[in-house]
Amino acid sequence: MLERARDLIHFKRFVTSEFVPSLLYTFKWLVLAIFIGLLVGTASAFFLFGLEWATHFREAHMYMIALLPVGGFMIGWVYYTYGESVVKGNNQLLEEFYNPLTPIPLRMAPLVVFGTIATHLFGGSAGREGTAVQMGGAIADRFTKWFKLGALDRKAVITLGVAAGFASVFGTPLAGAVFALEWLIVGRVRYEAILPAFLGAYVADYACADYWHAHHTPYDIPFIPDLTLVNVLWIIPAGICFGLAARLFSKATQFFGEAFRSTVKYPPLRPVIGGAMVAAVVFLIGTTKYIGLGVPTIVEAFETPLPWYDFLAKTGFTSLTLGAGFKGGEVTPLFYIGATLGNMLSGAIPLPMALLAGMGFVAVFSGATNTPLSCTLMGIELFGAESGVYVGLACVVAYLFSGHSGIYGSQVIGSPKHVSLDRNKGKRLGKL
Amino acid sequence: MLERARDLIHFKRFVTSEFVPSLLYTFKWLVLAIFIGLLVGTASAFFLFGLEWATHFREAHMYMIALLPVGGFMIGWVYYTYGESVVKGNNQLLEEFYNPLTPIPLRMAPLVVFGTIATHLFGGSAGREGTAVQMGGAIADRFTKWFKLGALDRKAVITLGVAAGFASVFGTPLAGAVFALEWLIVGRVRYEAILPAFLGAYVADYACADYWHAHHTPYDIPFIPDLTLVNVLWIIPAGICFGLAARLFSKATQFFGEAFRSTVKYPPLRPVIGGAMVAAVVFLIGTTKYIGLGVPTIVEAFETPLPWYDFLAKTGFTSLTLGAGFKGGEVTPLFYIGATLGNMLSGAIPLPMALLAGMGFVAVFSGATNTPLSCTLMGIELFGAESGVYVGLACVVAYLFSGHSGIYGSQVIGSPKHVSLDRNKGKRLGKL
Repeated sequence: MLERARDLIHFKRFVTSEFVPSLLYTFKWLVLAIFIGLLVGTASAFFLFGLEWATHFREAHMYMIALLPVGGFMIGWVYYTYGESVVKGNNQLLEEFYNPLTPIPLRMAPLVVFGTIATHLFGGSAGREGTAVQMGGAIADRFTKWFKLGALDRKAVITLGVAAGFASVFGTPLAGAVFALEWLIVGRVRYEAILPAFLGAYVADYACADYWHAHHTPYDIPFIPDLTLVNVLWIIPAGICFGLAARLFSKATQFFGEAFRSTVKYPPLRPVIGGAMVAAVVFLIGTTKYIGLGVPTIVEAFETPLPWYDFLAKTGFTSLTLGAGFKGGEVTPLFYIGATLGNMLSGAIPLPMALLAGMGFVAVFSGATNTPLSCTLMGIELFGAESGVYVGLACVVAYLFSGHSGIYGSQVIGSPKHVSLDRNKGKRLGKL
Repeated sequence: MLERARDLIHFKRFVTSEFVPSLLYTFKWLVLAIFIGLLVGTASAFFLFGLEWATHFREAHMYMIALLPVGGFMIGWVYYTYGESVVKGNNQLLEEFYNPLTPIPLRMAPLVVFGTIATHLFGGSAGREGTAVQMGGAIADRFTKWFKLGALDRKAVITLGVAAGFASVFGTPLAGAVFALEWLIVGRVRYEAILPAFLGAYVADYACADYWHAHHTPYDIPFIPDLTLVNVLWIIPAGICFGLAARLFSKATQFFGEAFRSTVKYPPLRPVIGGAMVAAVVFLIGTTKYIGLGVPTIVEAFETPLPWYDFLAKTGFTSLTLGAGFKGGEVTPLFYIGATLGNMLSGAIPLPMALLAGMGFVAVFSGATNTPLSCTLMGIELFGAESGVYVGLACVVAYLFSGHSGIYGSQVIGSPKHVSLDRNKGKRLGKL
């Protein structure tokens, strides 16, 4: 019996083959997470400062919007001349992950930061998570060479970079860590890089928020009703609407992208035309509420009834802006679409407006990126643990109802969302 | 271009092949979740009432502990005579999931409830999650037949039952839902049953807590320090200790189980001998703090310094109790071990005692069941969103350092925890 006990514990073998390797592994990733996290978090902070400056400057100088086609040409020309190797953005990171071919070019980081700030300076409608993720991935992949990392470690280092970028730009470390594990394959999570993701997300968030004091907008849901059966049943139709809105957004972005690619052959011209269209509509309707990040409207959606069509207008503006080749990302517009749609739904669904806005905020994002757990954690980090079941169930239903669509065309389907869609397993969303 | 737009939206095909099937799917699982959730939640409530009664009765009549061998014989004999088909408990659910052979016998539910209440009535040291999960799985699997569900749906229905049981016994719906998705394979999560799991977990928690007013103990971490880099670095050694404690517990339970099986041939005799040993030690050391669920000590661990050896004593008592064939589960003892170990570590690690107790509470559980995301969510549900990074990183580090061990011997390794352990991929934990 004693022998069996010794056998079970295998103390020596445990120490040499599990404990010490795990310690070394933890130490290695701690060092990498500190280096990469501080770099990415710092980059995020300056990116956020730049965005704030660009937004204020544009709001103070409305004529900037008339120059959107000029800004578009700048972005288009710079990417056409220097950025051919990085133009696929987030999808490029996904493709490198599935099928590692070439290091992520470092230029991805400065180009996307420049492109995003220019987009916002001239009044395009876009977000910032693409920028964060691409900055994170490109910076992190430097360490593959410097630390002579193998293929498996390279995947972990890119995951760490993505987690770091996402966490620091939104100020949500847990959501960032889980996002980097969850966005890789639709319907699956794998834990190979779970420690690097958590460490990188935290360090980058620390660097951005606590060291550089970059500001994250607080959102408030003042009252969260009891989780009665009836209240929970109301989450389902709300979640369905959020999922359909996510699908509409993904399809619209894909449509404008393909329309510009097929009709305008010279790439730098695409954002010129798209920019002229966006600027024309802004002057026609006489409001700037649908351009830029749209944070003020997101905050309003938690507080006061808004026009019902806000989410549609934002979908149109953003998919046109991004489809034409402007830079930034989709997530903050998705927050906007979700929060305003939730705001609108509070006319029909007997849940508090702020709660519906908060549910939409994360659930449309969940449907469009196929990352329900990360979005649930983001909801908890932004709105508190009491909102947990509301945001969690809304994210899951939206994930289900966005179907096999999403803003990352290269995302591979691991677990089909519905048994009738089994034929799509292993395919890329963009190829369906 | 318009044609392409129509192509992209595929409105009709979308409605018939995605939207309507998703609606029907949601409706089907909503109905199943309401039925199963109400049943499982009600069963959990009465199980919790029974446990409370048994604990109070034992505390009021200390002589019950002397009768532990008698109680042990009762449990052993009943399982030997009527329970051969359900004696593998949680592992049986896992094995049915990997390799569906026979319906989970309904008797699993009453037998495990009887066994657990008897274990606690006579003063064994055990938990309740095994009971919850087995009740949930056994009740849910009835619906496979009643609703004529196919093989895939059966997996989802068992997942729903497990989520319902776990969520309602601990009062943590999000942790319950994610646990049911996460416990199946070490290092992997799959979303096939994500909607059934979330719906079932919520409904069962509602039935248990809001309808039947079963009581869940509140735990309080009054002060959570800022997430400075130094504070976060201290999470790592704490997480390592929690992971090693989880490993020790898993190995000790496995050891006692094998020792009793190999030395005592007549199964009903095993809990008699084990019960006599436990009772003898209780009278020898003159305290009942290591038997039963141990909730008062868990609460104390958040409030006041405790003896350093509490976690070891609880590990010994519980692994002996369960290894001898008593029933209940491991999770509440794991909470106890983690909280008291965290309490002890607060002597060496400069973080607040209550925070370390809370981190240990979920992290030892994470290491022993290999479910870091579920445990992170449980920490957030119990202690609030502010504790998120502390509990999250502690759960991840503990998950890593428990190595390829765990309390569910049938759990299959999907993603090895360390590249040097790649040879273990696809194997069961209990077969290493």
